[in-house]
Amino acid sequence: MFGITPSARLRPSPYFEATLADGVTAFTTYNHMLMPTSFGHPEEEYWRLLKGVSMWDVAVERQVQLAGPDAGRLAQILCTRDLSQCKVGQGKYVAICNHAGTLINDPILLKHDPNKYWLSIADSNIWFWARAIAAERGLDVEVSEPDVSPLALQGPKAEDVVASIFGDWIRTLKYFWFRETSIAGIPVAVARSGWSKQGGFEIYLMDGAQGTRLWNLVKEAGKPWDIGPGNPNFCERVESGLLSYGGDTDEATNPFEVRMGKYVDLNVADDVIGIKALRRIHAQGPTRHQLGVLLEGDEPTSFGFRWHPIRVDGSKVGDLTNCAWSYRLKKNIGFALISTRCAAGTPVEVSMEGRSVRGTLKELPFL
Amino acid sequence: MFGITPSARLRPSPYFEATLADGVTAFTTYNHMLMPTSFGHPEEEYWRLLKGVSMWDVAVERQVQLAGPDAGRLAQILCTRDLSQCKVGQGKYVAICNHAGTLINDPILLKHDPNKYWLSIADSNIWFWARAIAAERGLDVEVSEPDVSPLALQGPKAEDVVASIFGDWIRTLKYFWFRETSIAGIPVAVARSGWSKQGGFEIYLMDGAQGTRLWNLVKEAGKPWDIGPGNPNFCERVESGLLSYGGDTDEATNPFEVRMGKYVDLNVADDVIGIKALRRIHAQGPTRHQLGVLLEGDEPTSFGFRWHPIRVDGSKVGDLTNCAWSYRLKKNIGFALISTRCAAGTPVEVSMEGRSVRGTLKELPFL
Repeated sequence: MFGITPSARLRPSPYFEATLADGVTAFTTYNHMLMPTSFGHPEEEYWRLLKGVSMWDVAVERQVQLAGPDAGRLAQILCTRDLSQCKVGQGKYVAICNHAGTLINDPILLKHDPNKYWLSIADSNIWFWARAIAAERGLDVEVSEPDVSPLALQGPKAEDVVASIFGDWIRTLKYFWFRETSIAGIPVAVARSGWSKQGGFEIYLMDGAQGTRLWNLVKEAGKPWDIGPGNPNFCERVESGLLSYGGDTDEATNPFEVRMGKYVDLNVADDVIGIKALRRIHAQGPTRHQLGVLLEGDEPTSFGFRWHPIRVDGSKVGDLTNCAWSYRLKKNIGFALISTRCAAGTPVEVSMEGRSVRGTLKELPFL
Repeated sequence: MFGITPSARLRPSPYFEATLADGVTAFTTYNHMLMPTSFGHPEEEYWRLLKGVSMWDVAVERQVQLAGPDAGRLAQILCTRDLSQCKVGQGKYVAICNHAGTLINDPILLKHDPNKYWLSIADSNIWFWARAIAAERGLDVEVSEPDVSPLALQGPKAEDVVASIFGDWIRTLKYFWFRETSIAGIPVAVARSGWSKQGGFEIYLMDGAQGTRLWNLVKEAGKPWDIGPGNPNFCERVESGLLSYGGDTDEATNPFEVRMGKYVDLNVADDVIGIKALRRIHAQGPTRHQLGVLLEGDEPTSFGFRWHPIRVDGSKVGDLTNCAWSYRLKKNIGFALISTRCAAGTPVEVSMEGRSVRGTLKELPFL
């Protein structure tokens, strides 16, 4: 692990000082911001997410706001999922593709009102994309970044903590739905969402000056449930089969290849970007798909920065796009982006740091 | 300084292993890649650049290739500088703006032939931008990333090293011009360019598998001139007044505000993106400009991740966008993005980490 040099090109989160005070030890960069990746106790942080409640600085999930009379029209042009039934207060997981049908982001779309949407984005520049499309098509919509910074509470006890802060109404909030409210004068939106499969909420802070106050307020409220700091958990997300755009995708990945086919509605209007290409790809059938790989061996391995080639009978058939030590399976596991000729159950060999490691293809999720 | 966690979202450079072997201690991220920022001896690395020759892994200067019959047309549509006189083999520093005239990148454009251009980009996603524009305007051009990774040699002795490798023809290469060639079977393009004002060259490696070989070849060739590893030098670039897109610019910065007015040709065709907005801004006069700030005090200070407010008579007039300890001036110096009402010579106060530091506005460059 190497140091990261401070730079004004990398924006700190409103929770930055609070996470420093709570002992953050490592970061990644995401959407030109810093995201905590460790508080120094990886296994403890994992079990806290699985059994209790963990709080995460996910301000890097930056918002692309579409506002104006054509906001809804632009949202639909950008997303391959049919949004015609999306209600105010509802969120939807969507695919954004380019004209060739290549996935360029997989955000949560939040519909605030018919003239205001947020795209809570993964790690790529959708402001540029949306502004280019809006301007070239002459749409009456402003694309901007509002002052919004999500804080996630994840784990089986997250609901109790969030209810203790905002009230029991949050217990009936449906998955991906959200509501604007406030706490101690701090304006927020609360959504049932988050990048884990352990359940939980995301509190969208709407005043960046209040980051430390909100962090400490949540920390205090969570004490009866033994809340502690964490971050999007690499092990849990691999076990749960959660996609990382940019980590598990490359410059040619389409949604069908990474289990996102259900977010492509082939009958949306022709002006939706990428839909014509996706109809062709769907008709021909994708050439790759995403499976799990269960590796042999009983010791944690390290993945590094690069994909690792996967071979069957000596021929390259795909890549291992991530690899984590599973605390539950006691094995190294990862995702394969691999030829559709290879099915679950197939034995494979993975080249990692000069070694060849044997494994077996599995359906996702692992757990 | 904190650790950076490995992730496949962050691509290592072809020179990654070579820089590890040479003792890199810190990185930044740039264009979703890792760039070395220190080899552990900052002052030594500075003087090597000023007095000798330094070699830098700048593979993060990724290439956006425009190829096809409409490549030249797209290049001109994207750039606010008139490219009609640009020759094959010539490079030009250009501004890319959005439709509002906001600067979104400041790359070097390299014209390989009338149907092939590279944009050697700063830290923002111009593939998305260029692909959106090309597709929306129905242009016959492919936007891609070729396998290209620049390695810079900078400093007064760089020319001798590069001549010893490629021959004396490089001594007559004009600023920003380039030529394709090869060395020991490794395909490269050699350009007179680089992100310092100490002179030098960039070798564009065109085979990512040869990174370690090229690094070691240059290192060996440079031994008579005492070459050593370095990186784009923060102190030197501040002294020399070099702009960092994303570091010294914000979401509303236009080229006139950051001394790039000479790269805006107001009489280019109306289809050049942003030119109509830039004509309006030029007519009204920009509200901010970029100056230097010489701070009082004789001890190095630290800048961190955030801009610092600049005040005159208690009122905020702008921001300090960077701050470096100048080894030559023995002062802390930085750039101000500041109201055009404030001119060089004006005394200012900068709020840094809770302290108020006095300084004076200066013309750029400092040296």
